[in-house]
Amino acid sequence: MNVAHRADALQARFAEHELEALLITGAADVFYLSGFRGSSGSLLLSADRRIVVTDFRYRTQVAEQAPDWRPVETATGSSQIETTAELIREHGWRRVGFQSDQVTFHHWEKLREGCPEAVALTPTTGWVAEQRQTKDAGELARIRRAAAVADEAMRFAAELLRPGLSEREAKAELEHHLVRSGAERPSFETIVASGPNGAMPHAPVSDRRLATGDLVTIDLGAVVDGYCSDLTRTFAVGDCSAELTAIHELVFAAQAAGLAAVRAGATGREVDQAAREVIQQAGRGDQFGHALGHGVGIEIHEGPRLAATVDQPLVAGQVVTVEPGVYVHGLGGVRIEDLVQVTDDGCVVLSHAAKSPRPLAVGE
Amino acid sequence: MNVAHRADALQARFAEHELEALLITGAADVFYLSGFRGSSGSLLLSADRRIVVTDFRYRTQVAEQAPDWRPVETATGSSQIETTAELIREHGWRRVGFQSDQVTFHHWEKLREGCPEAVALTPTTGWVAEQRQTKDAGELARIRRAAAVADEAMRFAAELLRPGLSEREAKAELEHHLVRSGAERPSFETIVASGPNGAMPHAPVSDRRLATGDLVTIDLGAVVDGYCSDLTRTFAVGDCSAELTAIHELVFAAQAAGLAAVRAGATGREVDQAAREVIQQAGRGDQFGHALGHGVGIEIHEGPRLAATVDQPLVAGQVVTVEPGVYVHGLGGVRIEDLVQVTDDGCVVLSHAAKSPRPLAVGE
Repeated sequence: MNVAHRADALQARFAEHELEALLITGAADVFYLSGFRGSSGSLLLSADRRIVVTDFRYRTQVAEQAPDWRPVETATGSSQIETTAELIREHGWRRVGFQSDQVTFHHWEKLREGCPEAVALTPTTGWVAEQRQTKDAGELARIRRAAAVADEAMRFAAELLRPGLSEREAKAELEHHLVRSGAERPSFETIVASGPNGAMPHAPVSDRRLATGDLVTIDLGAVVDGYCSDLTRTFAVGDCSAELTAIHELVFAAQAAGLAAVRAGATGREVDQAAREVIQQAGRGDQFGHALGHGVGIEIHEGPRLAATVDQPLVAGQVVTVEPGVYVHGLGGVRIEDLVQVTDDGCVVLSHAAKSPRPLAVGE
Repeated sequence: MNVAHRADALQARFAEHELEALLITGAADVFYLSGFRGSSGSLLLSADRRIVVTDFRYRTQVAEQAPDWRPVETATGSSQIETTAELIREHGWRRVGFQSDQVTFHHWEKLREGCPEAVALTPTTGWVAEQRQTKDAGELARIRRAAAVADEAMRFAAELLRPGLSEREAKAELEHHLVRSGAERPSFETIVASGPNGAMPHAPVSDRRLATGDLVTIDLGAVVDGYCSDLTRTFAVGDCSAELTAIHELVFAAQAAGLAAVRAGATGREVDQAAREVIQQAGRGDQFGHALGHGVGIEIHEGPRLAATVDQPLVAGQVVTVEPGVYVHGLGGVRIEDLVQVTDDGCVVLSHAAKSPRPLAVGE
């Protein structure tokens, strides 16, 4: 994938703050702009320089992954910040932007100390993150493959789950299956939340064993070629109670309403509200305490958000989750989540795992 | 494990900057001080308040994991920073410390905006990280268990590796074995670097298949009860060349010298140098381009470092890796790593995986 045009697009924004150079330190942004995926690297970008600052450990990798960028290695005993300050001095840049949402206060202090006083360090926020929200064809292809791997793991979950299996065992088997099905790694720690644990939207796995009558929420995703997927289904172990079934039907209806509301031009607030009001009208509004969805790409959580506070309209090519839930302390919970690509007149659902109004029964 | 005394010890440092309260935002520090392991939470600590700021999703979890801390939930549509600023106003704190190496410049700006002008926001660096360097008995027990799980996975690696197996397949099986052996998750992405890929200290796994004559570096670790382990061995697939064997013997000797140099009172520089000079004397000093080791605990990389720049003496109860390597572009590489606990008169090696001067042969 040729990604050089991404740095060009970013450079077009330099004029906003009269920048001569921009320092990029967020790992996902470094990957997006340069192709380099090492755990330690930053970029310096100017009108005529594209530099990746890294260290000895990544010498071979950076040459392979970021051939368009000139590698500068941090000397032993020096830090990446010091090397960066040195490069700024060397090139005589006076107005240098940095990512204020990616640089710690401490690193900013160090950078300030290392640069001549005449250098104006200028905070920028979210420039690359904004660019990353709209996916190009190559990115969409990767996300589609990541979604297909998640679908396959969810199909396997339906086979795997049975009374007596512990949440921890289920997590181990599901993550193994993800990797065997083509994931570089799970895109986050797989959630297996059974029975009353389902009341925690982000439940850590426990040694609790599945029992007949439980609902089990499985939330998983894959990373494929650096891009994430995210998928949630809630299963029933054997038969579950009428109340749990009704909650599942409610969340299913809310999710359908959310999916129907996604389209370019709709705001995050409007889409969130479309799903939320289904749950509110059933008197369970206070049991759905999180936002409806979030963007997915190189990071599992990125922009745009589908939330009551978001007035920005969606744009075609964005990829978001639609994931309402209902959580009842002491009883359990339901969440249903698909990954979708925003289009001009709606959305393309990228998740194809089985889904139905009543919870899918497993372990019978 | 009762961890209340940790916050007490931290509070004893408030006088250094005349702080009335301290904001803790680093996830590992939040876990260390409070027991809370959710992905989103921060702490506010004063003479008479212990508050954990989190959100709806963690309501149940925070009550279970951090019973000594009063939970405050961020309201929907508000941010953790806003809630924090509100709590600072409410309590009338005037001198509030923050972790300058954990807070982004952007969050600092937001916090600054949200607090009354009279509030002095005071940067602190590394207070909790320093405390975390010296492990207590409960922590050492967890690290020992994490090391045992890594040992077991390395034993399994010796069974698993064979000509024709790809690096990616090996990684999947090793990580599955880690989790089945009791890891919550791998403590980092398992490295399987074969043949020429071994020249990259942090090689990403590839689809390369193991071949007779390869060296294969396996670097893996487990998380058990929130604590990490870290272990590296280099295997030979069948017979390997005399040069690769000699490199392995050299790294083995350097590692032994490093282990022998670890004791309370020795500096990071001295221990690093003890191992490094073995490699330098063999004329391969420039092929060992990283530091000798790092601390391990809640995070896979924490203090203290064993490196040429570190003049601080080791302290009994610290846990560090000892991991020299030699990397030859185009040919391959060797790294050997154990996890050790620093004691008054030396160290206790916590890794028990098989190790010998010549690379362990596999796949025969």
